[in-house]
Amino acid sequence: MPNYVIIGGSDAAISAALRIKELQPEASVQLFLKDHYPNYSICGIPFFISREVKDWHSLAHRTQTDIEAQGIELFLNETVQYINYKTKKVQTQRSEYSYDKVLIATGAISSRPDIKGINLNGVFTLRWIEDMLKVDHYLQQHHPVRALIVGGGYIGMEMADALHKRGLQVTVIESSQTVLKTMDPALGQLIEQELNTQGIHILHNQRVLEIKRNHNELLVLTNHNQTVTTDLVLLATGATPQTQLLREEGIALGIQGAYKVDRQMKTNLPDVYAAGDCTETWHALLEQPVYLPLGSTAHKQGRIAAENMVDRPHAFVGSFGTQVVKIFNLIAGRTGLHDRDAEQYGVPCFTVASENWDHKMYYPGATPLYIRVSGNPQTRQLLGLQIVGNHQAEVAKRIDIAATALYNRLTVDQLNELDLSYTPPLSTPWDPVQMAAQAWIQAWRKLESTRKVSAYR
Amino acid sequence: MPNYVIIGGSDAAISAALRIKELQPEASVQLFLKDHYPNYSICGIPFFISREVKDWHSLAHRTQTDIEAQGIELFLNETVQYINYKTKKVQTQRSEYSYDKVLIATGAISSRPDIKGINLNGVFTLRWIEDMLKVDHYLQQHHPVRALIVGGGYIGMEMADALHKRGLQVTVIESSQTVLKTMDPALGQLIEQELNTQGIHILHNQRVLEIKRNHNELLVLTNHNQTVTTDLVLLATGATPQTQLLREEGIALGIQGAYKVDRQMKTNLPDVYAAGDCTETWHALLEQPVYLPLGSTAHKQGRIAAENMVDRPHAFVGSFGTQVVKIFNLIAGRTGLHDRDAEQYGVPCFTVASENWDHKMYYPGATPLYIRVSGNPQTRQLLGLQIVGNHQAEVAKRIDIAATALYNRLTVDQLNELDLSYTPPLSTPWDPVQMAAQAWIQAWRKLESTRKVSAYR
Repeated sequence: MPNYVIIGGSDAAISAALRIKELQPEASVQLFLKDHYPNYSICGIPFFISREVKDWHSLAHRTQTDIEAQGIELFLNETVQYINYKTKKVQTQRSEYSYDKVLIATGAISSRPDIKGINLNGVFTLRWIEDMLKVDHYLQQHHPVRALIVGGGYIGMEMADALHKRGLQVTVIESSQTVLKTMDPALGQLIEQELNTQGIHILHNQRVLEIKRNHNELLVLTNHNQTVTTDLVLLATGATPQTQLLREEGIALGIQGAYKVDRQMKTNLPDVYAAGDCTETWHALLEQPVYLPLGSTAHKQGRIAAENMVDRPHAFVGSFGTQVVKIFNLIAGRTGLHDRDAEQYGVPCFTVASENWDHKMYYPGATPLYIRVSGNPQTRQLLGLQIVGNHQAEVAKRIDIAATALYNRLTVDQLNELDLSYTPPLSTPWDPVQMAAQAWIQAWRKLESTRKVSAYR
Repeated sequence: MPNYVIIGGSDAAISAALRIKELQPEASVQLFLKDHYPNYSICGIPFFISREVKDWHSLAHRTQTDIEAQGIELFLNETVQYINYKTKKVQTQRSEYSYDKVLIATGAISSRPDIKGINLNGVFTLRWIEDMLKVDHYLQQHHPVRALIVGGGYIGMEMADALHKRGLQVTVIESSQTVLKTMDPALGQLIEQELNTQGIHILHNQRVLEIKRNHNELLVLTNHNQTVTTDLVLLATGATPQTQLLREEGIALGIQGAYKVDRQMKTNLPDVYAAGDCTETWHALLEQPVYLPLGSTAHKQGRIAAENMVDRPHAFVGSFGTQVVKIFNLIAGRTGLHDRDAEQYGVPCFTVASENWDHKMYYPGATPLYIRVSGNPQTRQLLGLQIVGNHQAEVAKRIDIAATALYNRLTVDQLNELDLSYTPPLSTPWDPVQMAAQAWIQAWRKLESTRKVSAYR
């Protein structure tokens, strides 16, 4: 039976390992990790920092024992330093191992922006369990009172919530006009209202130039000449794929330097596969690769890489850009393209905002959903959907109705043909997603009647 | 401009009226109601009885003023007694009115099973606002302590919850083995566990033969010779379409005596349309008409009838049998076909049960979702999905992921290609629906390996 080597121990790696053993129980699967935290849910890091999760060990999707029980050989704290794709061997700091097929699933590291003083004590990034333990240790040792988060993306938002729950006064500095650029600005503003209500301070349109230490404090200088005094700085400015392996041997790199892979997760080198945050992701709507490191995608890519490695050809359908985040009491979700994406990629896009109750108003607890529907004004194809709403309003799975519609390339009109579930405590007879589609259709008709559709964009 | 007459004032009727005015603002729309409760959400009735809704007037989707503001003429307490489809006139108890096109949206009434003593004081059915007011009046006047609900379907279950919340001791009598026959028995049993926990008593496999009054009490005799003593009896044994109009003129009737309509909601008589609970519903998977009276469907049928009436041809895609109900702290949802349906209609069906957490277990509040995936073992096409889970576990909108998949005739395998949203407080990297699909695939492979697939059913 063939021998598979997998490099990495997070979502893509473990998914692949498990899937190989499922399809080829007799195969040998050797998995090399640079740390000793196999299969941790790194998406759960903010919830340990917030102490919603009490024991960080519970962040593991599976224990080491669970994984080994599947017949997967784990090599902890063993870093693959070199792959010889010609002799089909990997070299670690300890030994050399042969493979028939290898999967690189090394993930990403936090981006380190060009800021002076970035290596000072009290300045952190946060992506892996070790990063989390360092931040947590600092919180326990130094009892910081104030925190500055650099970057208002998903991790920045979750960490603002988490550090606030941990008792810190939190400021977020964001280089653009609103936080959460993965949503249109109107929805970013709703998130900011929630942050303000919770006492989070936000600085807009500013970048950090330098961090200095002044005794127990950190002084953070922005490009607006503002100085923020704080006790802890968290850099949350994105992720960079880890792609040292095989670089010099000519492995192809793509968007943002991620490994270039085809839809079967093959690299350009023979029997070398890559999956997860170290690779590009095929965007199913744009029909081109993007860099979109997400846990849900990594799981899928790992599974698909495994299937191709065991010679059961399976192409990755691609991502539709579905993402969701909980920020205090709000959920912000999106799928497909929003205005900024459409503009960036030159897709004709017409977006209509509407506000609909999550369930019948007469039943207690109804809350408004702020929905933006994006559609192609020429073809009426659904392009994307964004929702901001209360954490009990089934926002996430309403996004998934749209994600499923996108998978099938439905028009906005077709959303109204879906037979969606209704009971007054949970929805309205037309689901809010359908009400939003109807608002789009009405707005489109107005647009059409002013004969501007054909000229739109 | 043409003159449209609409008979009925509930979901299908009002949806149609509004849609006509949207598309043809100048048209005349006259709407005749037999009562004076236009556009009430009859799905909300249990929540007024339970007093979760304090003011029953709030059950109106829209007020009379809202409706009239759209230019719709309302004729309250005016019953259409006769339609002359040749002269295109309707006759009410007050006058005669001409029409160009007429929509019958008379809804259904509660079925009245063959039980002696069904007309006794204290014995109720519940479908319309007037029924609700009668039950409520009785509760206020007679302070019943015990209630017997005949029928363990949706309304029976919601009313068990409602009367329990109102302080009554509730017994449910169900003619089959488990309540909620729209779910497979294994899930019906989970519902019963919840009912038992709440103190609801259930009698299985029994039918009521006779009800007698004994002073202040009602004595209910079952076919097992059991006598239940109670203070109030609620008959919740289904709905019967109201189809008196045009019967003698030869209007075609279909399943369960409902008006026969084509996909454009046309009857067999010229310029006579029908929609909502008085009509058959096209089942999109079975590709045949069924009788499935639901608010969500009535809204769609009303809208589509309107579009065809104003000569914008639009065919009803059909229902996928999507339904959801809240029963105390549980949500039970389904879409598509389940085992019993598949058996009834002779569809090859393989169903696999699995249990998955609604979100990452490490994040507080995770609860199990009990999921049943049904697929065609020959084509692997998804046939249906059922979930029972906690009311905060986004059960309803997870059902809608499957409903959207059914609309697109996806295979069970394709559920795993959907890019669904993930964040640890709300889901798992593979959504529970996808985990359930994977369980189906694994079970199918086992079945296949034992070479039984081709022989299955």
